[in-house]
Amino acid sequence: MPGVPRTFERIGILGLGLIGGSLLRAVHATGRDCWGYDADPATLEAAGTDGFEIATSVRDAAEDADLLVLAMPLPQVPDALVELDSWLRADAVLTDVGTLKQPVAEAVAKHMPSARFVGGHPLAGTEHSGWRAADETLFDAAPWSLTLDPPVDLDDWLGVARVVCDVGAHPVPTTAAEQDDAVARVIGLPHVLAESLALTGLAGGPLGLSLAAGSYVTGSRVARTRPDLVASWCDGNEALIGALDEVIGRLDATRTALVEGGSVLPLAEDGHAARMNWETRAVRAIRVPADVDALLAHGRAGGWITAVDTDDVIHGMLPA
Amino acid sequence: MPGVPRTFERIGILGLGLIGGSLLRAVHATGRDCWGYDADPATLEAAGTDGFEIATSVRDAAEDADLLVLAMPLPQVPDALVELDSWLRADAVLTDVGTLKQPVAEAVAKHMPSARFVGGHPLAGTEHSGWRAADETLFDAAPWSLTLDPPVDLDDWLGVARVVCDVGAHPVPTTAAEQDDAVARVIGLPHVLAESLALTGLAGGPLGLSLAAGSYVTGSRVARTRPDLVASWCDGNEALIGALDEVIGRLDATRTALVEGGSVLPLAEDGHAARMNWETRAVRAIRVPADVDALLAHGRAGGWITAVDTDDVIHGMLPA
Repeated sequence: MPGVPRTFERIGILGLGLIGGSLLRAVHATGRDCWGYDADPATLEAAGTDGFEIATSVRDAAEDADLLVLAMPLPQVPDALVELDSWLRADAVLTDVGTLKQPVAEAVAKHMPSARFVGGHPLAGTEHSGWRAADETLFDAAPWSLTLDPPVDLDDWLGVARVVCDVGAHPVPTTAAEQDDAVARVIGLPHVLAESLALTGLAGGPLGLSLAAGSYVTGSRVARTRPDLVASWCDGNEALIGALDEVIGRLDATRTALVEGGSVLPLAEDGHAARMNWETRAVRAIRVPADVDALLAHGRAGGWITAVDTDDVIHGMLPA
Repeated sequence: MPGVPRTFERIGILGLGLIGGSLLRAVHATGRDCWGYDADPATLEAAGTDGFEIATSVRDAAEDADLLVLAMPLPQVPDALVELDSWLRADAVLTDVGTLKQPVAEAVAKHMPSARFVGGHPLAGTEHSGWRAADETLFDAAPWSLTLDPPVDLDDWLGVARVVCDVGAHPVPTTAAEQDDAVARVIGLPHVLAESLALTGLAGGPLGLSLAAGSYVTGSRVARTRPDLVASWCDGNEALIGALDEVIGRLDATRTALVEGGSVLPLAEDGHAARMNWETRAVRAIRVPADVDALLAHGRAGGWITAVDTDDVIHGMLPA
């Protein structure tokens, strides 16, 4: 039987870019003690100047935390874990905000196997980067994957979920593998398509430069994102290969239809229906049992958490 | 030698959907006499209730016009042309607002060969449709293709360009074939990709429904457009086949890279550069000679018109 969700009141955040910086602002607004650290001195100084508590090192950020958030770029995570293994308190919980959950879980298993780790991924962001783009409201109503793979402690998980709810987001219980499969389709794929459009749309000559408007502008918006970030959200995610196969198949079929004097209409009708069904889907409030399997089934069915009471009563929403 | 640009002061608009309705509002705001007609009685009544002059038939809309705008769906254009051949004054100019310019030019050549026709295409719009979505400011800074194919009269063309400038848009001189090639890449392609994303993004199961956010939302935005409109912007445009081939090639290469443990980075870098170069391109003001070939070269180089003086001095902008 789970007891009560953990309470986190001293939250350290490592990495103060768009996500880490927005989280520092949002957690601060909940009234909790919180502080940030960034390896870049200019970023750290900017956060301090803006009135936030800053740590002077990874050790300084970790020692007093009951919840520590890894918000640095994925390539810097392994080194941070090696260092944290010495400084993070044994009862502190570690979470992160990376897009892909399997690589982080593997790094934790390798470099910090004793960590009480709950993988996290806020599906929030813009095509902007850095502390200057950080926004306290970035997570309002945003989905936020929280992994429940063994050996996660359910009370740790529920405690993290409460923090996520408190910054305005919607915790989605999932496994690392299932979240990465979904992310291939709703993050990796949109970015690959936006990059392809940005490039191909303008490859027809200068006339296209002046005629590009509405659909080109929004379709290629996320091509404004830093290319190394896009690569870090796509590379190594095998599910993206399958998603690309499906898109290539649809584009091939549309190409064949056009060659044969046919129409884009079947694709347009199916795409329109998918988008409108998604936008207009009804959801209903339900209670979710405080049980790992029940929570995972809830996330798998398209549900999310809206609140975790102190007695482990979990409120959620589920597609009707 | 061209004389002076035609002056249009009595403008009839056939079709009061998003584009025609917005144009009626925008032309009205320039102080010109203008009126609208729509085959749908409810639309016509709504326009009248909103205080705009309405015509009771195609004939009524055409007889007194010095400029008549075809703003109905493409499938209704041939019938309208047959009727207009009886009622439009011989010195009146006919224009349109359709996405593809070759099909309209062919319909005019077939059904109304004596028409003084200048094909037009405002690259403005939203994913909404109908009179209720019409907006006087829809054309602000929007590119607006105006075709200069023979036997167009340059003074007719310049007169239409003045009206386009007066509603806030940027006339782009082009041929029907060149504009349709460019449109394949900056309208057809973004819509086909958005439809494919809308469909494939959510095809992985319900978890994706809750995780879909930023990049999925904007990437599939134009899948909200009515499917029959999307088809009318794509079908029969041979250049879209080539654009699809290019995208499929890029996606295939990216897929292969992922299979081989490589990276999305090369695509992301190229896409990012294309988008940022486009956004930040510098333009300079120039004068364009009142000459068909010079105007076409200006459009082909990515330029547009900003003003046409009464003495045929043409002001434009060109990528630096």
